[in-house]
Amino acid sequence: MKNRKLVLAARPEHLIKETDFRLEEEEIRPLKEGEFLIKVLFLSVAPVMKFYMLDGAGIENPMQFGDTMRGRGVGEVVESKNPTFQVGDIVQGKCGWQEYVICDGTPYYMMYKVNQRGLSYSTALGVLGMTGFTSYFGLYNVGECKEDDNVLVSAATGGVGSNVGHLANIKGANAVGMASTDEKCKLLVEKLGYKGAINYTKENIAEQIDHFFPEGVDIYFDNVGGKILDIALTKLRRYARVVLCGRISQYKDRDNPDYSLNNWHRVGATRSKMEGFFIYDYEKHFPKAEHEMAQWITEGKLTYQEDMLYGLEKMPEALNRLFTKKNVGKQLVKIS
Amino acid sequence: MKNRKLVLAARPEHLIKETDFRLEEEEIRPLKEGEFLIKVLFLSVAPVMKFYMLDGAGIENPMQFGDTMRGRGVGEVVESKNPTFQVGDIVQGKCGWQEYVICDGTPYYMMYKVNQRGLSYSTALGVLGMTGFTSYFGLYNVGECKEDDNVLVSAATGGVGSNVGHLANIKGANAVGMASTDEKCKLLVEKLGYKGAINYTKENIAEQIDHFFPEGVDIYFDNVGGKILDIALTKLRRYARVVLCGRISQYKDRDNPDYSLNNWHRVGATRSKMEGFFIYDYEKHFPKAEHEMAQWITEGKLTYQEDMLYGLEKMPEALNRLFTKKNVGKQLVKIS
Repeated sequence: MKNRKLVLAARPEHLIKETDFRLEEEEIRPLKEGEFLIKVLFLSVAPVMKFYMLDGAGIENPMQFGDTMRGRGVGEVVESKNPTFQVGDIVQGKCGWQEYVICDGTPYYMMYKVNQRGLSYSTALGVLGMTGFTSYFGLYNVGECKEDDNVLVSAATGGVGSNVGHLANIKGANAVGMASTDEKCKLLVEKLGYKGAINYTKENIAEQIDHFFPEGVDIYFDNVGGKILDIALTKLRRYARVVLCGRISQYKDRDNPDYSLNNWHRVGATRSKMEGFFIYDYEKHFPKAEHEMAQWITEGKLTYQEDMLYGLEKMPEALNRLFTKKNVGKQLVKIS
Repeated sequence: MKNRKLVLAARPEHLIKETDFRLEEEEIRPLKEGEFLIKVLFLSVAPVMKFYMLDGAGIENPMQFGDTMRGRGVGEVVESKNPTFQVGDIVQGKCGWQEYVICDGTPYYMMYKVNQRGLSYSTALGVLGMTGFTSYFGLYNVGECKEDDNVLVSAATGGVGSNVGHLANIKGANAVGMASTDEKCKLLVEKLGYKGAINYTKENIAEQIDHFFPEGVDIYFDNVGGKILDIALTKLRRYARVVLCGRISQYKDRDNPDYSLNNWHRVGATRSKMEGFFIYDYEKHFPKAEHEMAQWITEGKLTYQEDMLYGLEKMPEALNRLFTKKNVGKQLVKIS
């Protein structure tokens, strides 16, 4: 039995290229005691992965050439010498960009069993996984979302943003999303629970925020940073919360971000806060979030959006789509 | 009996000028039922007062020409037709820039009795008043100060900053202050409880922060904004708190702050928060803070620093000293 994997071959300079990776094939070795073999079903991409590929980006250890590309996936246990993980179990964790992975059950792999709820297992990488948890804890805990809050969301059709509209509704808050095309804006309103949408590539963002939220913004859920953050700061109400969730506009060269923030003083002047967070700090509350969100999906209160490519070879393209704004919903790749 | 007062005569363009005010003299009218007459003992200045003088600065209502300049003071009740305020009471509140004020006891004046603790009544405008409360709630509540925290403070010899060193020590935290002269730096270390001091006008700020706090900064208590805030952001540890207390570097033209923040992304990257606050939101906890700080003064754990001028005519100069970095400690004027 053979495994195929993508290993790091070059460090990206701007966008991700197929040639930044090399496809390798290897025999799958026999399992040792305590190990189990996972057949990867779906792999996930996230902007942070670009940093794994860089040297000295300051997030985790940089990868070395020849290392299997890091990334989370969901898979099925197909062979096991570990009593905790049985053949047939669906698991989620650090799979890497490959078709099979041997896991020893140590915390490094952050591997846990997926609750099989009759939904696609891919949801364990999206709405019922880290992406959904990021929406949930970002909005509810960092953003302290409450009834009637005016919630503004950037990259609202992205993996994280695509859950925030419904999550805001569930609290009785009003969400308006920003996206890059009219088609995405339509999706925000028709499917993703947003009360309104702003096409930031062709509309006047400040005017549109005033239109939807004449009294101002209570929560700005920021997935992009830079210029849009700067505009949003001018629209904060008193005691607003700016959830610093992502900075994809600045990810092309993180150590030298090219945008300087003009309106930082609005944070102090409006008695607001601007806060970053790390999703694993909420780890002990993941089961509650997963349970609630699964319930809301069943009840029809939460819909989710996945953007699926097919085949391991599509991983570089999948990652690139995040930076070229092509993905609509959580970007995934079906591997097997 | 006559009152003398300073009324607004011009809106400041850059620094405060004496000619921005006009000295007027008036008869003190007889008291109506419910009113009491206060003889002003001390008046206080704060950077925000410059905004009162401007039109459209967005903080409270702008003053009109001929209005008595707004400002807090402490005084003695010398005549009363109000059963709550007796002759001889020492009170604190909105006195305005004048020698006598008639107060009707309504909330507008925010007038309350000063606990007479054997300290100078001026402390009710400094360490045991809004200034001290700003240090206390800024550091303890917004900054969430705890043992061993590395606390960096800008404008550390200013009214608010001059209390923060000792308050940090009381929690077992380590404070380093920044100031504009070697003399002020000496004061920080020798009298104001700071473990170290940085003369930001001649030392390399980033290097000095590294020197005192090689592991980084847990709390940056910011009284200045702008460039120093930007440098401090590069030194944040994970889960740091940036207390946005003042922005005096930007107060010359608040609606068009001249500094754009480069390192805003460090807030998110370090999972930190940057937060503004309004001291009156803590109003119900003022008595506790006042009681504790008075106790600490008695025990010698908290010393305070006042910078005193003499006479109503010195009020414009007193306010100006905040912007020219001349004050050392809480800037006050003894009126009577």
